Amino acid sequence: MTSTRIIIDPPELAVTEWIGEPSPLASLKGKVVLLETFQMLCPGCVTRGLPQTQRVQRLFPEVAVIGLHTVFEHHHAMTPDALRVFLSEFRITFPVGIDRHDGDDPIPVTMRAYGLQGTPSTLLFDRSGALRLSAFGAADDLALGAELGRLLAEPDHDETPHTKGMDE
Amino acid sequence: MTSTRIIIDPPELAVTEWIGEPSPLASLKGKVVLLETFQMLCPGCVTRGLPQTQRVQRLFPEVAVIGLHTVFEHHHAMTPDALRVFLSEFRITFPVGIDRHDGDDPIPVTMRAYGLQGTPSTLLFDRSGALRLSAFGAADDLALGAELGRLLAEPDHDETPHTKGMDE
Amino acid sequence: MTSTRIIIDPPELAVTEWIGEPSPLASLKGKVVLLETFQMLCPGCVTRGLPQTQRVQRLFPEVAVIGLHTVFEHHHAMTPDALRVFLSEFRITFPVGIDRHDGDDPIPVTMRAYGLQGTPSTLLFDRSGALRLSAFGAADDLALGAELGRLLAEPDHDETPHTKGMDE
Amino acid sequence: MTSTRIIIDPPELAVTEWIGEPSPLASLKGKVVLLETFQMLCPGCVTRGLPQTQRVQRLFPEVAVIGLHTVFEHHHAMTPDALRVFLSEFRITFPVGIDRHDGDDPIPVTMRAYGLQGTPSTLLFDRSGALRLSAFGAADDLALGAELGRLLAEPDHDETPHTKGMDE
Repeated sequence: MTSTRIIIDPPELAVTEWIGEPSPLASLKGKVVLLETFQMLCPGCVTRGLPQTQRVQRLFPEVAVIGLHTVFEHHHAMTPDALRVFLSEFRITFPVGIDRHDGDDPIPVTMRAYGLQGTPSTLLFDRSGALRLSAFGAADDLALGAELGRLLAEPDHDETPHTKGMDE
Repeated sequence: MTSTRIIIDPPELAVTEWIGEPSPLASLKGKVVLLETFQMLCPGCVTRGLPQTQRVQRLFPEVAVIGLHTVFEHHHAMTPDALRVFLSEFRITFPVGIDRHDGDDPIPVTMRAYGLQGTPSTLLFDRSGALRLSAFGAADDLALGAELGRLLAEPDHDETPHTKGMDE
Repeated sequence: MTSTRIIIDPPELAVTEWIGEPSPLASLKGKVVLLETFQMLCPGCVTRGLPQTQRVQRLFPEVAVIGLHTVFEHHHAMTPDALRVFLSEFRITFPVGIDRHDGDDPIPVTMRAYGLQGTPSTLLFDRSGALRLSAFGAADDLALGAELGRLLAEPDHDETPHTKGMDE
Repeated sequence: MTSTRIIIDPPELAVTEWIGEPSPLASLKGKVVLLETFQMLCPGCVTRGLPQTQRVQRLFPEVAVIGLHTVFEHHHAMTPDALRVFLSEFRITFPVGIDRHDGDDPIPVTMRAYGLQGTPSTLLFDRSGALRLSAFGAADDLALGAELGRLLAEPDHDETPHTKGMDE
C-alpha cells in the first residue's frame, strides 16, 4: 500500500483548475505538504481518506494540506461542477486541484506521472519539495501522524544550507 | 427529529424512474417497509443513513428496503446518471426510485407530500401500508431496531381487511 | 451465539447480594426485562456488552435493565468489593446481582441453571416472565433493538393469566 | 492536557514489581520510550488509553512500550493479583511496573514525582532519556503519532555523550 521511494524532484501537479487558493507544489516549498488524491464518488475517499485529511488540516496548521481530484472512471459523473457541490457539502476547505486529462487517456496526467494505484492516495512532500511518501488506501492515523512528525522534525535545508550541521 | 404521526393511507411514491426492481409502495403491501430518502451528496446520508439502511437490509431479510433520491438542491450535480454511479460505487443494492420534480419547485413531489424536513429521512410502513414512522436525521440503531421489531411483531391485517381500521 | 429457545418458567436468579435495588425476576413480572450477565474483567463485557446495556437503559425507560455478575474464573480478583468499585467507576447505575457459588463449582448457580456459555450474555424476558432470548457475545444494536421492540409490542398476558400458555 | 516541558534527567520509575520484563528507564536509554500510566479500573484507560498503547506497540516495534500501574484510589480493588488477571484478560503484553506507595500517601511515588494529574497519562522519553511529553487523557492518534515520529527522527546522542547538553 505504501511506497517510501523518495523522489527528489517530483513532477509539478498538472491542474486545469483550482477550487480555492491555487497551490502548485512549487509555491509550497519550505513547508511539509500533504496531498490527498481522491475521487468524489469513491467510498474509501469519502468515509476515510478525506475525513483523515480534514483532521490533519485541523491538528497541523504548519502542514500545507491540499487535494487533487484524480478522476479515472465515471468521468461524466464527477465533473468540476459536481466536485464544487461535493466540496461545499462535505465542508472541505483546503484547496483542491483538478487533475488534467490528456487526449483519450482515462487516467489523468498527475495520477499517471506519480504512478498512483487508485484513490484515495496520500502523498507527503518534505520542506525541500521531495516526495517522501505515497500511500494507497486509508492510512492508520498513528502511522500517518508519525510520518508527518518525522518530516516536521527535519530542518528546511533549502533555506540556509550552511547552518545545516547545527540543526540537530 | 421523529414524527410518529400515523398516516393510514400515505401517498404513493412519485417516481420518474427506478434503479433496480420497481418497488411502488402498493406492491409491498403485506410487508414491513423501510424507505430511506437521501441525496447522493449529503454527508449525513453517505456516512450514516445509507450504511444503516444497508445493515437493515442484511439483518432483516423480511423487511422490504427501498430508497428514494429526493434531490432538493444542487440538482445539476445529482442527476440520474450520477446517481447510478454513486449506487454502484457504494454497493447499494436495494431498489432506488428517483423522486419526481413538478414544474420549477426545487423540492420533489414525494418529499413535499410527506412533509420531509431534509435528508436523510427514514420512513417505516407497516404491513397494512400505513406510515408509522418518519424520522429526520440518522437514527440510533437500537431505536430503529425497536421500531422494526414492533412492526414485525404485528400480524398482517391485510389478510383480514375488515379489522384494518382497528390497528391502533 | 443466540438461542431463541423459549423457557416459560425460567429459574429465579440465585443472588447473594444486590448492588442497587434488589430486583429478583419475580418482582419484574409485567415488564420486559434485559438481564446482562458479565464479569468485570472480561474485555467484551467492558468494551461492548455493558456500554450497550447502558444505551438500552437510556433509550428504553420502559424496559427493566438489570445485571448479574457471573464470575466463573479469577474469582479472587472479581470480589464484591472490587465489583462495587468497578460499577462506580464505569457509572453503571442499573441494579447488579452477584451470582451465588455452590460448593467448589467455579461456575455460579444462575449461570449453570441458564446454560450460559460465557460472558457477556444478554437475556431477554417478556412481560409474562418467560425467557425469550439468550445471546452470548455482543449483539448487534439493530438486532437487539428489534428483539426489544417485538417484546414491547406484546400485550401483558399476566393481566389475563388464562391465556398465558398461548403466547406463542 | 499536555505538558511539553522537557525534563532532561527525569526520575527513575519507583516500581515494587514488574509484570513482564523488568524495564527501568535506565535500561531503555538509546530508545524512544512510551510509558502509559493507568489504573486497571479507570474507564478512560481501559477503553482508550491502553488500546492506543497496544496499537503503538504493534505499529512501532522500534519504540519501547511500557506501562505503569499508578493506583491512587480504590487501592484494595486494584491489587497486584487483580492487575495480573486484568493484563492477561486484556492481552496486554508490554511490561508493566507497579508504582510504589510511600507511607500513607494514596498517590504513588512515581506519579507524584512526575506531577501526573490522573489516569491515563502518556509519557514520551527521547533516546537520551529526557522526558519530552506528558499528556493527561487519551491523546488523538494523529497527534501522538506525530510526537513519536519527531522523536524517532532524532539521532541517538547517547553515542556522543559530550554533546548531550546541547540537545535543545
